[in-house]
Parts: sequence; C-alpha cells; structure tokens
Amino acid sequence: VTTVSELSESELVAHIQARLPPPPDWVAVGIGDDAAVVEPERNRVEVLSVDAIVEGVHFDRRFTPPRAIGHRSLAVNLSDLAAMGAAPRLALLSFGLPAGLDLAEFDDIVEGVAELAARHRVHVVGGNLTRSPGPLFLDVAVAGTAKRRQVLTRRGARPGDRVFVTGSIGAAAAGLRMLRDSPTPVPACAERYLYPEPRIRTGLLLGRNRAASACIDLSDGLADAACQIGAASAVGMIIEANALPIEPDARQWFEGHGLDAVIEAVTGGDDYELLFTVPPRQSGRLAAARKGRDLPVTKIGVCTREPQVVLRRGMTDTPMPHGYKHFG
Amino acid sequence: VTTVSELSESELVAHIQARLPPPPDWVAVGIGDDAAVVEPERNRVEVLSVDAIVEGVHFDRRFTPPRAIGHRSLAVNLSDLAAMGAAPRLALLSFGLPAGLDLAEFDDIVEGVAELAARHRVHVVGGNLTRSPGPLFLDVAVAGTAKRRQVLTRRGARPGDRVFVTGSIGAAAAGLRMLRDSPTPVPACAERYLYPEPRIRTGLLLGRNRAASACIDLSDGLADAACQIGAASAVGMIIEANALPIEPDARQWFEGHGLDAVIEAVTGGDDYELLFTVPPRQSGRLAAARKGRDLPVTKIGVCTREPQVVLRRGMTDTPMPHGYKHFG
Repeated sequence: VTTVSELSESELVAHIQARLPPPPDWVAVGIGDDAAVVEPERNRVEVLSVDAIVEGVHFDRRFTPPRAIGHRSLAVNLSDLAAMGAAPRLALLSFGLPAGLDLAEFDDIVEGVAELAARHRVHVVGGNLTRSPGPLFLDVAVAGTAKRRQVLTRRGARPGDRVFVTGSIGAAAAGLRMLRDSPTPVPACAERYLYPEPRIRTGLLLGRNRAASACIDLSDGLADAACQIGAASAVGMIIEANALPIEPDARQWFEGHGLDAVIEAVTGGDDYELLFTVPPRQSGRLAAARKGRDLPVTKIGVCTREPQVVLRRGMTDTPMPHGYKHFG
Repeated sequence: VTTVSELSESELVAHIQARLPPPPDWVAVGIGDDAAVVEPERNRVEVLSVDAIVEGVHFDRRFTPPRAIGHRSLAVNLSDLAAMGAAPRLALLSFGLPAGLDLAEFDDIVEGVAELAARHRVHVVGGNLTRSPGPLFLDVAVAGTAKRRQVLTRRGARPGDRVFVTGSIGAAAAGLRMLRDSPTPVPACAERYLYPEPRIRTGLLLGRNRAASACIDLSDGLADAACQIGAASAVGMIIEANALPIEPDARQWFEGHGLDAVIEAVTGGDDYELLFTVPPRQSGRLAAARKGRDLPVTKIGVCTREPQVVLRRGMTDTPMPHGYKHFG
C-alpha cells in the first residue's frame, strides 16, 4: 500500500489534476502557479466562504469513507453559498494530510470533491497540500457570485414573517448515530449524513425571486439557525414542533431509542437544509419560485416582536433548546 | 489563565473583530454571516491563494511567539500574491485551535495577522474557527487584484533572460536554527525568520512596469524556486554563487558552524523574497521600476536553453541542489 508520504507535493497535485475537468475560459491561471487568476463575473458581487472539517471533530474515518469526507469538505462550503443565494463558481482546496494516509484514500477524497464540484459547476482553481502531524483536515475556500440586490443574509427578518425550512431534518443526526452505534444503519439516514446535498438551487431561486427576507443554512442544527437569524434580525420566532418536517426514518429511530425526536431533530447538526423567512406580502413570490418545480419547503413558524425563539408543542411554549456552546 | 475552550465560537469571533478596523465600502457583508460579500474591483482580474501553516511542520510554538505565528500565516499568502504582481485586498482566516490554547495567545495570533493586514490594506472579511484535536493550524485564503496583462507567472522565462532576486537570502534559515539551537540568536536573522516581509511593493512594480518575464516567491528556498521557474518556462539557469546576496550574519553563522553558506542559503526556506527573470531588452523597464526607489534586487544569473538549473562556483558548475522532496 502506497502512502501519501512516498510522493512529492507536485505528484500529489498531479493526482488532483487528473480528477478535475479542464479549466473554463474565465480561469486565466489555474493550479500550478503561486496563485490562481480568474476573471470576475460582470455585474455581480462576490460571495466568499471558508470552512474546515477536521478528523475527530467533524468526521470519523472509522465509518466515513474517503469519498464522503471529500464530498463533505466542499458541501459544507457550498451550503454557505446557498444560504446567501449565490451561484458557486470556484474552490481552493487546502488539505492537511497525515503521513500514513493511503494514496488510494487520498484519491477517493479528491474524487468526492471532484464529483460534487462537477455537479455544481464549481471549478477547483488552486490550493495547498501540507503534512499534518495530527488529524487529517480539509479546509476549502469557495467563491460564488450573485446580483447585489439578490444576496440573502441573516439580517432581514421582521415580526410577522413566516419561517420555512427546506427538505427534512433529523436524518443526518440519526444517520451519524446509526453509523457509529448500529450494525445496520438505515441507508436513507446514513446517506444523508455521509453525502449532504447543499441546497444551491433553492438558495438561488429564493435570491432571484427576492422572496426571502433572511436565510441561513442548518450546519449546526435548526435550533441554532433559528436563534442566529433571530439575533441578527432582532426578532424572535415561534417554531411549531408539529410542523417540523422530521424525516420519518429518523423519527422512528430516535423514538425507538427512547429519545425525543423533536429535540434531536432541532438540535442535530449536519442537515445542510436552509432556514428562511418570508414576509407575508411576498408569499406570492415564494409560490412563484416553487411553481412547477420540485422545491420541498415547509412552513414551520412565524417571526415575533419578542426576541425569544420558542418551540411550541401543543399548548406549551419552551425556549428553543440550543444553549451556550463552549468552543472546546 | 483562560483557554479558548472556555469561550463560544461567537465570543472568539468577537475577539477577532475587536482587533480589526471597520470594513471598507466594498465589503457588502463582512464577518458574521454564512459568507462574505464583496464588490469586485473594475477592470481587474482576481488573484487567489490559500496556504496553511501547521504546528510541528511550519512552526514550533516553543520558540515562535503567537504574534509571529499570526504574522506568518498571512505573510506566506501575501508573498504568493506578490509573486503574481497582485495588490492584496482581502483575507479569510480558518483556524484550528487546540482546546488548551490560551486566550491571550489566541489574541496575540490575531494581533499578528491584524498588524500585517493593516500595513498592506488587506481586509479580513470572514473565516472559520474550529477545534483541533492535534496541532494548531492557521489556514488563510487571500484575494488580490491585478490588471490582466500585468500578472506575473512562472511560465514566461526565455533563454537569455537575466535572473534576479530581491533582498537577501539565508537569514531566515539561519534565524530558525539560531532560535532552535542557540541561547543568543542574532536578532537580524531571528527577526527575518519570525516576521518575514512579503515583497508586495516589488511584485506590484515588476507587474506594472512589465519588466519581468517570470516570477516566483522563495517560500521553499531559492534552489527550488529556480527549478520551478525552469520547469514551468522550459528553460535552465546558471546561478552564480558569488553573486548571491547572502545575508552576512547568516553567512558568518553557517561558516562558524562548519556549513557551506551557499548551499544553506539556496536550500533554506522561509525567505519570502522574489526570484524573477528579465529579458535583456526589458532591462530599461527594470531600471525604471527601481529609479528613485529603495528596491533591493541583485542579478544572480541567466536563463539557458539547456534545461538544467546549475550553480556556478568559480569554474565549476554543479546541478542546483534541490532533489526530490518526499511529502511526508
């Protein structure tokens, strides 16, 4: 078995380039120089994000295949662009590799990045490879474009705005536990954890239709996302537990293990759905964005003047569980 | 002593923001949303780079103060932009922090970034903080701008072009050894290792004057840089050992320790000077770029049709020592 430590950096870069399509016209200088050079897109603002995933913090190599690790490293970043209503364009890959990493694993990680990149027409224009004396880490920077007036932020929600979430929640959190603890994970949940699909198309439609007043992705869970929009927009929210689109397989698994499925689904991370708010007078724009499209969104609540984000279960309102998260 | 693990991510982000100036006009959305949004600069291409520095690989916390670590994380990236002739504009910081890192150290790291950023008018528009179960790592992505025709690459050198290097070499490599092995490091060398100064201004002047046919920075040493330009441009080089601007303190220290100062200076990394080539007919442009400016550059050799890069010492030519570097 060959490990990455037996190759030179330029040989590893060649392994990456072999898995990428040729660069598009707007890339003036791609991989292989001190920096990449790209033509900006006309009449667009640029949307930039960076996010690292670290072995032992964000993934466990014992049950996360290399292709899923590569996929995730880009997906978490594309999800940030989706939340801004931006069209992704390019990525820079910065990997920290343990010396003992198999070359075949490295190749599979790159495949995972390349597949997702190709699907969303994201071009890898450069990056950096370094050794890591500790965990494997993949740090990806992405840039996308949007029309300035179509950018979605966390700040625009107002009291009375409806709160929506895309797709379903809870599956990734259930999938992670299944992969860790169960010999027979439910494929639907495991796949949702391993290969999260960033909601690029939905984010773009929400931005273009100017239907949403605020938007965020659920990387740290719905409860955290609701509180982040609340804090940035100076509003509260009432979230209806009964309206939450909890993935049935996940609900069943949580309840089968004596857990409260609602709490697990709102506090569980890794869903990479979008949470967004829509002013009542813009509901026609949301309907127009959805018309004739398979755009799964569910209304789950409303923004309030009172600053608290609360979870309403039947007749009872409780503060949305998110709490103070220590960094370490 | 407070450690970073006792704070939340948003509290740590507040520590970063407190050390940064207010964002300029072209930043539409800065730190605190899913992504940053910036206005592109008109009639410019964008130059993008990412580079990580990892504890135990690129720095040793036992003798590298936190401020120097922060400085280095940005400097290595700005040096890449300098090598492309780009004006730096913005940075995204992605840090992996061991739970036990002192908050005061974290603050000093950020100060080191912020000081260098302010000096080069680079604005930190976003980033990411994550725990690291292993080493401290700082991954910085930067973007700069250049006129398309003024971009410098590694590819344009031709036989007959003169080879130049900025500043002096060897001081950083000597400084690193002094810091590691000596109770009394020579301040000039130690400073050069700890606080490398990216050659932004020189890179810009070379690009604007269109004096250079190829350019690269010396992050991995002069020997490696010469071979990289040689390979990318399909030329060789003769580098004159006697012409190399070896820092006198470094030469003295190397020779005092029984080492060959020339070999140490060309193979030692971390200098972050620029190596560039100038066609004979453009020597007037280089002179114009230097006129009235303190722009230390030294002619050290010439590009050749034969593809080898050789080191000429007196009457003897030997292959430039760089060799095959294993990744691990």
